[in-house]
This record gives sequence, C-alpha cells and structure tokens, in this order.
Amino acid sequence: MQQKTAPTFSTIRTPSSYPASHKRYLQGSRADLRVPYREIVLSATRHHDHTEDNPPIPVYDTSGPYTDPEIGVELKRGLPTGRGDWIKERDDTKFLIGPSSEYARRREDDLLTFNVRFPSSARPRRARDGKNVSQMHYARKGIVTPEMEFVALRESMRLDRFAQDPAYALLLRQHRGEALGAQLPKEITTEFVRAEVAAGRAIIPANINHPELEPMIIGRNFKVKINGNIGNSAVTSSLAEEVDKMIWATYWGADTIMDLSTGKHIHETREWILRNAPVPIGTVPIYQALEKVGGRAEELTWELMRDTLIEQAEQGVDYFTLHAGVRLPWIPLTARRLTGIVSRGGSILAKWCLAHHQENFLYTHFDEICEIMKAYDVSFSLGDGLRPGSIYDANDEAQFAELRTLGELTERAWKHDVQVMIEGPGHVPMQRVRENMDQELQHCFEAPFYTLGPLVTDIAPGYDHITSAIGAAQIGWYGTAMLCYVTPKEHLGLPNKEDVRTGIISYKIAAHAADLAKGWPGAQLRDNALSKARFEFRWDDQFNLSVDPQRAREYHDETLPHENAKTAHFCSMCGPKFCSMKISEEIRAAYGEQEQAGMAEKAREFLDRGGEVYV
Amino acid sequence: MQQKTAPTFSTIRTPSSYPASHKRYLQGSRADLRVPYREIVLSATRHHDHTEDNPPIPVYDTSGPYTDPEIGVELKRGLPTGRGDWIKERDDTKFLIGPSSEYARRREDDLLTFNVRFPSSARPRRARDGKNVSQMHYARKGIVTPEMEFVALRESMRLDRFAQDPAYALLLRQHRGEALGAQLPKEITTEFVRAEVAAGRAIIPANINHPELEPMIIGRNFKVKINGNIGNSAVTSSLAEEVDKMIWATYWGADTIMDLSTGKHIHETREWILRNAPVPIGTVPIYQALEKVGGRAEELTWELMRDTLIEQAEQGVDYFTLHAGVRLPWIPLTARRLTGIVSRGGSILAKWCLAHHQENFLYTHFDEICEIMKAYDVSFSLGDGLRPGSIYDANDEAQFAELRTLGELTERAWKHDVQVMIEGPGHVPMQRVRENMDQELQHCFEAPFYTLGPLVTDIAPGYDHITSAIGAAQIGWYGTAMLCYVTPKEHLGLPNKEDVRTGIISYKIAAHAADLAKGWPGAQLRDNALSKARFEFRWDDQFNLSVDPQRAREYHDETLPHENAKTAHFCSMCGPKFCSMKISEEIRAAYGEQEQAGMAEKAREFLDRGGEVYV
Repeated sequence: MQQKTAPTFSTIRTPSSYPASHKRYLQGSRADLRVPYREIVLSATRHHDHTEDNPPIPVYDTSGPYTDPEIGVELKRGLPTGRGDWIKERDDTKFLIGPSSEYARRREDDLLTFNVRFPSSARPRRARDGKNVSQMHYARKGIVTPEMEFVALRESMRLDRFAQDPAYALLLRQHRGEALGAQLPKEITTEFVRAEVAAGRAIIPANINHPELEPMIIGRNFKVKINGNIGNSAVTSSLAEEVDKMIWATYWGADTIMDLSTGKHIHETREWILRNAPVPIGTVPIYQALEKVGGRAEELTWELMRDTLIEQAEQGVDYFTLHAGVRLPWIPLTARRLTGIVSRGGSILAKWCLAHHQENFLYTHFDEICEIMKAYDVSFSLGDGLRPGSIYDANDEAQFAELRTLGELTERAWKHDVQVMIEGPGHVPMQRVRENMDQELQHCFEAPFYTLGPLVTDIAPGYDHITSAIGAAQIGWYGTAMLCYVTPKEHLGLPNKEDVRTGIISYKIAAHAADLAKGWPGAQLRDNALSKARFEFRWDDQFNLSVDPQRAREYHDETLPHENAKTAHFCSMCGPKFCSMKISEEIRAAYGEQEQAGMAEKAREFLDRGGEVYV
Repeated sequence: MQQKTAPTFSTIRTPSSYPASHKRYLQGSRADLRVPYREIVLSATRHHDHTEDNPPIPVYDTSGPYTDPEIGVELKRGLPTGRGDWIKERDDTKFLIGPSSEYARRREDDLLTFNVRFPSSARPRRARDGKNVSQMHYARKGIVTPEMEFVALRESMRLDRFAQDPAYALLLRQHRGEALGAQLPKEITTEFVRAEVAAGRAIIPANINHPELEPMIIGRNFKVKINGNIGNSAVTSSLAEEVDKMIWATYWGADTIMDLSTGKHIHETREWILRNAPVPIGTVPIYQALEKVGGRAEELTWELMRDTLIEQAEQGVDYFTLHAGVRLPWIPLTARRLTGIVSRGGSILAKWCLAHHQENFLYTHFDEICEIMKAYDVSFSLGDGLRPGSIYDANDEAQFAELRTLGELTERAWKHDVQVMIEGPGHVPMQRVRENMDQELQHCFEAPFYTLGPLVTDIAPGYDHITSAIGAAQIGWYGTAMLCYVTPKEHLGLPNKEDVRTGIISYKIAAHAADLAKGWPGAQLRDNALSKARFEFRWDDQFNLSVDPQRAREYHDETLPHENAKTAHFCSMCGPKFCSMKISEEIRAAYGEQEQAGMAEKAREFLDRGGEVYV
C-alpha cells in the first residue's frame, strides 16, 4: 500500500467507498441537516430448507464526502461548505477582508509560497464585536444549534427505528454496561447534547472558519472518539502526503485529526488540510511559533504567539493544544524524573520559562487567549506538557500539579463560555490508569479527558500501538472521551500511510471495546452481526462488517485464495472434514424443533418483554 | 521474513542470538542445574563532562539452547536431555522396551512414515507400578525437586544480588502493584514453589518423556506466561514448517507451545517438535483421535482415546487439553447461542454425546485418565469446550455450567496428585472479564487459569491479536496465570511465521503489562532501562532492550537509515533543531547542582532508605 514516490495532489487517489456499503443520511429538522452514516449490506443465510434475510447494518461514518459517489470531491476546490449557512444564519459573525494575522498576510504576499498554496481560500469569518460564537455559549443560553442536532442524530443513529423489527431486535441485544465514569442517557436527544455542552462535560469542536466539517461531539456520555496525528517535520514528508494521510485516516475512522507539522510550509499544509477535512482539526500552535523564531524557544513572545493563534483560528483550526499548565514552579519537579519532559510543547515552554525566569506566557495571558477562542469557536485542548514519558514517571507530582492547574484554567475558560478538553498521559502502568481518570474528573470538573494511550509498558518500541491500545481501552472504559492514537512508529520515526492505518484501527478497537464496556446503546450491533455471519460461514459478510474489510479478506485469501472458499462451510484452520462450526450447526439441527425456533423465538421473546436489550 | 517455499530440516536456520546479548546461567545447588537467562549489554551514557556506565540487564529467556553459541543444536538429534538425570535419580520410573500404544507401534512398523520420522527417538519412560511421578505428588510429600529449584531461580533471576549496586538500585524501583488476584511472595524460594504446586495453585508441566525441556511454572503468584499455538491442518503447511515455527515462537518468548496439528503425520510432527522443544508442549489429543476415525466423531471410543493419550504421553507431551467438562446436560444450553460451540474439541465431544445420547466419555473415564497422567506427569489443561465464540455468548449459563464441572474434575484430579490448569475464554466484553476470573477462582479452587485472550470485541478480524491483547492484559492482571496467544490470522486462516511473531510479541506485551500491574518484583527493570536509554538517545540500547529489537531498528531506519543517526541527539519526529528530549536535557542542565546530583542522589537515597522499591 505504501507509495514509492511522494504523492502530489493530482496523484492522490482518495478511497471512494467501503465494500458492500452505501452512504446514507439521517434527515434532521432542516433540509441541509443530513447526518452521514454507512450501511453495510449483507447476504442471506442459507438454511437447509429456507433462506433468511440479514438486514443491513448501520455504522458511524467519519469518512466524509469522499465516500459519497454523489459528491465529486476535487482537492483543489475543497469540500462542500454546507455548514456555512448555519453559521451565517446565527447572524453573529462577519467576513473579514483578509486575514487579521500579520504573518498570514505576509505569507499571502510571498510569491515563493504560490505553488504550494491552496488555490481557492475563502475570506475568514470572525464574531462580531461583543459576540461569543462558541457552542458552549449557545448551549448555556438554551439554544440548540444545528451542530447539536447533528451530533445527537449521529450518536443515536436512530437505532430505535429498528426496535420493532425482529431481525434487528435480536442483533441489538447486548451486555449491560458498567459505566464507571459515565452517566449514559436513556435517549440521546438534542436537549441532552445541549445540556452536556452547557455543563462543559462535552465539546463540539467546530470553528466557524471550518464549515467543511461534519460536527461530532467529545464527552464521556457519548461514543468514545479517536484522534489521529499527522504532520511533516523538517526531516521528511511532503505537503500532499499529509493531505493524503488525513483523508486516509478519516477513511479508517479518525474522529479528529491533529496536524503536528513542524517543517516548511506549515501554514500552507494546514490550509490544504482544513479545506479538505470532514473532521475537526487540532494543532499545537507553539510548534509554528517556534519555527517563526528559528527554533530558539527563548525568543518566543506573547505577541508572536497571539498572531499565530489568530492566524490558525482564521484558517479554521477547531482545537488548540496549549500547554498553559506548564507553570514555572512545576518545572523543577521534573528534574529528577527518569525521562524529564517528553511533550514537545511542554519542553518548549519550560525552556522559555527558565530562560526568562518568568511565568509561562500562555498562563499569564490566558484570558486574552479565551477572547480569541470565543471569537472563532476554537476549543481548548489543555495540553499535558508534563505528562510522564515512562512508566517510572507515571502519576508523579509534576504531572498532577499541572493537572490541577489545568482545572484552574478550565474554570477560567468556562467563564468565557469557551469549550475545553483536558489532555492526559502518556505512559502509565495498568494499576495506576484509574487514578488518572479520577484525578481528572475531580480537578478538572468533568471536562472531557483526551489521552495519548496510555502505554502500559515501555519495552515494546515498534508495537506501541498495542501497548497503548491496552491502556486506551481501559481509560476509555473509565470515562475518557477521546483517545489519541499511537502508531507502530511511536518513539522511532514518522508514520507512513500503513502505520496511520494500523494506528487508527488499533484505536477503533480500543474505543469500541470501551463503548461495549460502558454499555453504549447499540454498540454491540456490529459485533452481533459479524459473529452471526462468522457462525454461518458468510465469509464476505464477515469481511465487510469488520473494521478493516480489505485486511480481513487479504488474510483469509492468503491460505484459501479461491472465490468458492468464501462460500465454503469450512476454513483453513480445520480443513473440510473437521470443523467446529459445522459440528455446532449439526448440534442445532439435532435439536430439531428447538433449533428451528431458536433464533426467531429469541427475537419474539425480546419483543414480548418490551425490548429488554441485555443478554 | 516469510519463506517462499516450505522449509526442510536442512534449510531451517534457527535464530542463534539476540543483538547485544549474552546467554547466561544461574547456577543452582547441583552442577547440572543451570537456569538460563539473557543479559543485554548496554553502552555508556555520554554526559557533557563524564561518561556513565550502564549495567547489563538480565531478562527471562525461553529460547533454549538455540541461542547458546556453546551448544551446537542439530535438529535431527534433538536437544540435550540434561533433565533425564533428575528423573533417573528419583528412581521411580522405568524404560519401556517400546511404546505401549498400539497406534504408536503400528506407526513404527509403517514403512511409509520412514522418511518423515524423527531418526533417533529414545525408549519411553513410565512410572514404576504404583508410583506417581507428578511434581504435585512430590510437592505434597514435601520433596523439593530440581524442577522446583529451577523455576524458583528462573522466576527470581536472583535480582537481589543487585540490591546494593546504585546503578541497578535505581533501575529496580517500580510502582507498587495492585495484585487483585495474586498473593505475591516477598521472596521466591524453592519452598514457596513447592507449596504453591502442592496447593494446586501452580503447575510445572514436565513430562518424564520430555527431558529436553527447561522447567517453567504456571501460577498466578508467578510471572504471567504465554502460550503460542502451532500446527498444520489437512489444507496447508508441512512438518518441518511446524518445527521451524516452534523454535521461532520460543525465540520470541513463548513459554509453552501447543501443537494443534490435524493433518497427516500428526504423530511424526509431534515427535520432531518434542525432541527439539525447550519449552513444555501441550496438545488436544482428541484431534488426533478424530483423525484415526476418519473425522467421524460418532465413531470415537474410549479405547481409542486411551491409546491416543498413552501414545502422546510416551512421546513426552507435557499437558493435555481435555474437554471433559462438556457434559451431556450442558449441550442444550448452547443451542440458543449466537455462535454455538466454537471450540473444536468441545464440538467433537458434543457431537459424540448427541450421537450416542451418552455422557462424555472423558468425564465418565476421568479417573482412568488420571492414572495415565500420573504415570508420566502429564498435566491437565481442562478445556473450555463451551467457551463463548462471540461477545453475545459471553458469560452465559453453558459456559459457567462447564466451569463448575471443571472445578469438580479439578478436585478429582487432585485426589490423584495430578496437576491441573483450567482453560478460559474466548470472547468477553471488558466489563465482564473480571467475572470470569472470580468464578474460576471460586469454582476451581484457585487452580491456574489459562485463557485464550479474551477478545474484547468481535469486529476486528485481522487484528484479533490486538482485540485479545487488551482482554489478556486485563485478565492477566486479575490473576490469570497463562495467556494463550491469538495471531492476526485468528478466524481467517493459519498463521505464518510473521503472524506467529506478531502474536507472541503482542502477548509478551500483555503478560508484561500484567506483571507490572501485579507488582511482580523487578518487572519494571527493563522498562526503566529502556526509558533511560531512550531519554539519553542511546538508540542501539533502546532497540536491544525492546521485545523485538529487529523490528524497532527497522522502523527507525525507515526514516533515518544512516548509522550516525543512531547516536544523534534527535529523531525523525522533530528533526535536529526541535527536540523535546534535547530541551529537557537543557532544563536539567539549567538546574546545575541539582542536575549533577539528580540520578546519583536518587540512587543514594534509595539505598539510604533501605531499598524502598516503590516510585
């Protein structure tokens, strides 16, 4: 799958569909509110005396317009901007003549950037004077925005429409959850969404300058989300390559993307990404600020940072990682660590603090930052600059001192009605993962938690997607709202496309395992449908229902490549004469009556009992 | 790494060493008791004004004589049989003239098997009449066998010899464990091992006909172990290929291997594997019994099964998976499952029970089986024939009814002083994993639990090493003693060598994460050493300390292939100008005195406080 040469915008082939799938939309209360999902079409089950239809299975879809054959996306034009009308109708923003950021204006005038520039950027929007355009602000005023309705539909998938259909009723049954950190709603209404956003327990990252995005919500009383990081560095990777990775990551299921570019053309790369991103985009603005001062952290200034925040806010970045909690007094706490400060942003700010022996300028200017955030609805992702970089350093005083500061900043941001999530570690052994969630809920007042893994051991470079998926599934269950992926290249190098795919799929698994554990309504539908297909030797259906149909098919075909093996009632593990599933079917048959009745009866029982959904 | 053509015994190239590693031995109380471990040699840290030596790191080693350059292994001769003397000295066994099994004798006389036969098999041993040669029997009589001393040394690694060395003292510090299901000892003595084996809380699988093995212990108060499955089927894979996979799996860290072959030459494949296996070998004897009746389960008889058990016991199989808990009354409980019976052994026996409408012959002949087991010291791995094959079926009545029967059989086996472990699922959502461990401890009287994963979701065929590593790490923490690996090919096909490697490494990660969580003494040593190397940009040391040095190096070199990049104080993620670890080092330097003192002082503090090992 890896490309030998770097892609260009004309050679990128965006993935256009999933096998046996249709793009579908849930219609909201207004014509332009259409919530995408994917429907996987299944074949019928052939019993010995009849066939049984299997209903199509709806799944949450992050892949955007690329997988809608009705929409022809052209990267040089960017995605449709349907959400622009919702913003316009609120009548609290204005178009600017051009960028307010001095740097962005200079960049526009720089002829050398011409051939890497996105060709058709719109003028930026900004809140009118005195207006606050954050989703939290609307929520607190009792307003249900189209964005809120969108996410309510997206989270519920309207699965209740299937409750009376026996085929679905059976597949919708699931184990009762153990929602350790969450209070899941009985029904995901728009009002529930509004209340969660108003309370700060969830955020909808949606910059008014990113009208291309399909809104999503991050909060522990919703489905667990995942983030994929992309970004070039001074050493490697091109601009088009990053756009290609972004689309690729959303195809596999990234709910948000962070662009962590540090090389040349950060500004232009970001523009290409935003204009083509159906998901929220996050950044770490200090990376770019540092580039602007030639990599010398001590030369950073608040004015430069401020200009960078405005530059990126007007491009449409949906959330900023800001390490405002790396306070001067906490820095000495890291000197005796095994692995010091491993967060890039954290170490830049620590270096600045030490060079000037002054308090972190993001901390001292925090209210000014809030003013910027609310003028564009950029959400805070309060960075854990002092996160542990090793098991040894996990849960130490430096980490928790910073976490308490993030809580203090959360309260300050909420005074401005600015949306906040809190970043978390990192490297933590399993028995100390829970403490991270508990401390976060307590000190940050239930703001959504967004963790990197955590990795539950340090000994497996090359496999840190696995060491961290273990910790991620665990902390997702405990209540973490979004899991930042880790690829196999973590600690070793920059991820290529295959690494991105592996990282995303590993995190889809962790997030889904957490949804099952929390008892998210309908979470088990896909598991049930896939297991039924597996048991019935519907190989194609098994592949198509999986998180990576291509991979599943490829692995199967390695041993049994012939097409008729996909309808065969055996697999390569046992061979034709000797198959446990076949024998199981015979047992069912032996139970005659009972077998005939089996599944259908279960479904009837289910409906008779008024839709008791627990196994 | 994958071979294009099937290997033959002359083309197998066994892995002979790990990078920067030495094979070492801990000397026991007798000259022929030498416990292998691997020592990873590290380079010095270059500080700006001095260098600091880093001590070599000892790690548990399952790879056997293959990685000892002093021993030249020839596959056609098999491994050294040093343990034979211990067995001989006990003076309670005798050599037989030839196999007692009728089938084995027929096989010996069959000229057609000549060219696939292991050339130099020894005569089988068996207990003298009235003798019981199980490790449990000795333990209960208060005898400490060399096998027990071997595992005591192997588990402890004598790490206390480093307690007074400041360099190790720092690296030995770790987080306090949360030993949910375990009662870890303060010191791992031979007496502790004996007592655990006597109580049935741990087993040492070590058939008297497998003198090639290096003893290991399976119990929840010891390090968590992992099993790797190999085995050809009627459809694919050759004999030499399986031997190659066995060696390969132990190289990567398999503590035991199960040979699940179902094709031709099962008997001969097993012989080759046993004679070359430094780890215990497990089998599912009913697979071979079924082959003997042409795949027709209803034609199985107790006599045939009995002959098969003796055949395999005399070859040296260390543990048998026997699905004696698949009782006739439990079978109807599976008819309404989503995925019926997915265990091969379970479904064979279920089919037999139904065909004859009789109780499972393994259940009715259980005491006779115990008589066989104790004559060779074969351990029971009581199979969970009714394990759930989907999240839907997890923790259901069929599963727990069988588990209670396994508890009943455990007590019966213990009356014969036969060693027992209990197999567990399967597919279980995270919030219901704990219940499996709790039920097992209660109903099976703390016999060691041995689980397949569990997989915490069904939706990821192609990635089930990950879905299951999540559940495995979790249940390992809760007290499971051995984790049966799952490869990326699970549900799809037979694993090739690369799949075996991926499966083993995934499970090394899960088992190690569980050891850290339980607070196994010294478990964090390797994490600490690796993280220190990472922080100090000792790239080679980071690779060499990792669970898969080759993979770590290969991934690093993908972005930065030049040799000098491995001593560079930056990595490809950030580039030369911009590196968080570099900045962290500068911060340490800024703290002057404090920094100089930093790590050394910590080590002194540690020793002053009498070796407090908790971070």
